[in-house]
Amino acid sequence: MSAAAAQRATAFAPASVGNVGVGFDILGFSVDVLGDRVTASVSATPGVTIKAIRGVADDLPLEAAQNTAGRAVQALVEAAAPAFGIELEIEKGIPLGSGLGGSAASAVAGVVAANRLLQTPFSKLDLLKFAMQGEAVASGSLHVDNIAPSLFGGLVLTVGIDHPRVKQIPVPKGVRAVVVHPHLYLATKEARAVLSKTIGMSDFVWQTANLAGFIAGCYSNDVDMIRASFEDVLIEPQRQSMIPGFADVKAAAMAQGALGCSISGAGPTIFAWALAEQAQSALAAMEAQFASRQIGVDGWVVDIESAGARLVEI
Amino acid sequence: MSAAAAQRATAFAPASVGNVGVGFDILGFSVDVLGDRVTASVSATPGVTIKAIRGVADDLPLEAAQNTAGRAVQALVEAAAPAFGIELEIEKGIPLGSGLGGSAASAVAGVVAANRLLQTPFSKLDLLKFAMQGEAVASGSLHVDNIAPSLFGGLVLTVGIDHPRVKQIPVPKGVRAVVVHPHLYLATKEARAVLSKTIGMSDFVWQTANLAGFIAGCYSNDVDMIRASFEDVLIEPQRQSMIPGFADVKAAAMAQGALGCSISGAGPTIFAWALAEQAQSALAAMEAQFASRQIGVDGWVVDIESAGARLVEI
Repeated sequence: MSAAAAQRATAFAPASVGNVGVGFDILGFSVDVLGDRVTASVSATPGVTIKAIRGVADDLPLEAAQNTAGRAVQALVEAAAPAFGIELEIEKGIPLGSGLGGSAASAVAGVVAANRLLQTPFSKLDLLKFAMQGEAVASGSLHVDNIAPSLFGGLVLTVGIDHPRVKQIPVPKGVRAVVVHPHLYLATKEARAVLSKTIGMSDFVWQTANLAGFIAGCYSNDVDMIRASFEDVLIEPQRQSMIPGFADVKAAAMAQGALGCSISGAGPTIFAWALAEQAQSALAAMEAQFASRQIGVDGWVVDIESAGARLVEI
Repeated sequence: MSAAAAQRATAFAPASVGNVGVGFDILGFSVDVLGDRVTASVSATPGVTIKAIRGVADDLPLEAAQNTAGRAVQALVEAAAPAFGIELEIEKGIPLGSGLGGSAASAVAGVVAANRLLQTPFSKLDLLKFAMQGEAVASGSLHVDNIAPSLFGGLVLTVGIDHPRVKQIPVPKGVRAVVVHPHLYLATKEARAVLSKTIGMSDFVWQTANLAGFIAGCYSNDVDMIRASFEDVLIEPQRQSMIPGFADVKAAAMAQGALGCSISGAGPTIFAWALAEQAQSALAAMEAQFASRQIGVDGWVVDIESAGARLVEI
């Protein structure tokens, strides 16, 4: 019976914006001002147990198979078959149903912490696959657009589900993300249910042109191309009515010179990209729109590049 | 009445591969081993007239409005309103219905030659718009995936139709295109007609992931990512039955180590990308598949980067 490499480890995984407008289910970026922490400890109880859930959400399932972090660590345990059990303590920093990748962050923090206990740790790409199993518990689908940026940090593209490949995409210097979280709740499953099952050919061509232009603009430091292609013609029109005031919030951001503005993941959080000199005024304008509707908000201006999930001392 | 800047000019515009598998209607690359030439001359006859069509296709419309080069130069004349007429002589080097962007090349060569006659020449982006008008005569749609690479050269992304933006995408050093043209005829209009008008959501996500991965792979010199994402899950399955032996030709290319293989534009030309050391064997293997079906072919290994359309001395 091999011993654990450590008795206890804590990991932080950042929040994230999924879809990024033009990259439905494949593109996301980390929002490193908030995140979830998971502590993994060697336990005499076999398998995965959850000792406690604290923080901004505490009514999550304590049964490991039903919990995003629990299920993700179960997937890791199934692959590693360690000679000990793993007990988790989860501290939620990301509100439930905010569209900020909270379930992904818990899953990622769980596997990063648990990985530290193993004598032979897994690669990040393996951890990605384990975390996807956890994310599926919450969202009902195997999408990776929050998992990958929470784990790797920055703007991240994921290609493939069975054999995912991850690409960190450079973001032009001077570009910031503006993230506004209204105090409303939207379940990812419901937000997915409103989406049409099919896409028209001309919308397809338009959306793919925007996606390609956005990525080419990032790689080539071409802010004008990013601005020109930063438009979701497919998903946003179907979901925007679920967020009170969305059109006005977006218009407010664009009026301040934002490069683009759309829904973070399934919403209700709204994000924009803006040059640093316009980011604070875009944030204020977006928040003011929610305030005028008596909806409370949290808002941040963040660097998009980030270290991603990491072990922390507690 | 302002005089012409030149009495006569000839331009060459290269053939091109449209779609490039993952970039339906938005991505293309130039194939600079063959192309069309158009000579534009100042004429006393107002508007645009076509004096002659020669080369590998001579049964094209002589009426300017029905001819791709003629219509493109008409669009230029409508915008410039020169005090002289323009007469065109067209020399086709690209076979009709080959899927090698022949109509686009004639339109591009036409506007590049005619532009040389103007005292105040247009920008390349303006020429792109004029050439699109010509392409629409042949294909029935305003797509730019052949026009842009023929005009600019190399691997080119176009975002937008009304206000197109063009991005030349770098191709990793050592990557070559293999292009095999079977002696069959496929009309673009017919090849478009077979396509479904709608796309399923999961195919959409898969195709967009491949497109994004392909572009990211090109920018980051990541041949493995290009290989992993070089798959058209949408259009190729609908069109491949129009090309006898397609599946075998593709399998032959992949068996030689090609990075990917798909239909050039609407077909029947098939293209592959391969590392330089595998390109010739991929070409031979692809040609052999057509030969075994008693179908004649032309085939080339080409550098993807190219200067694009240019004025030439004749």
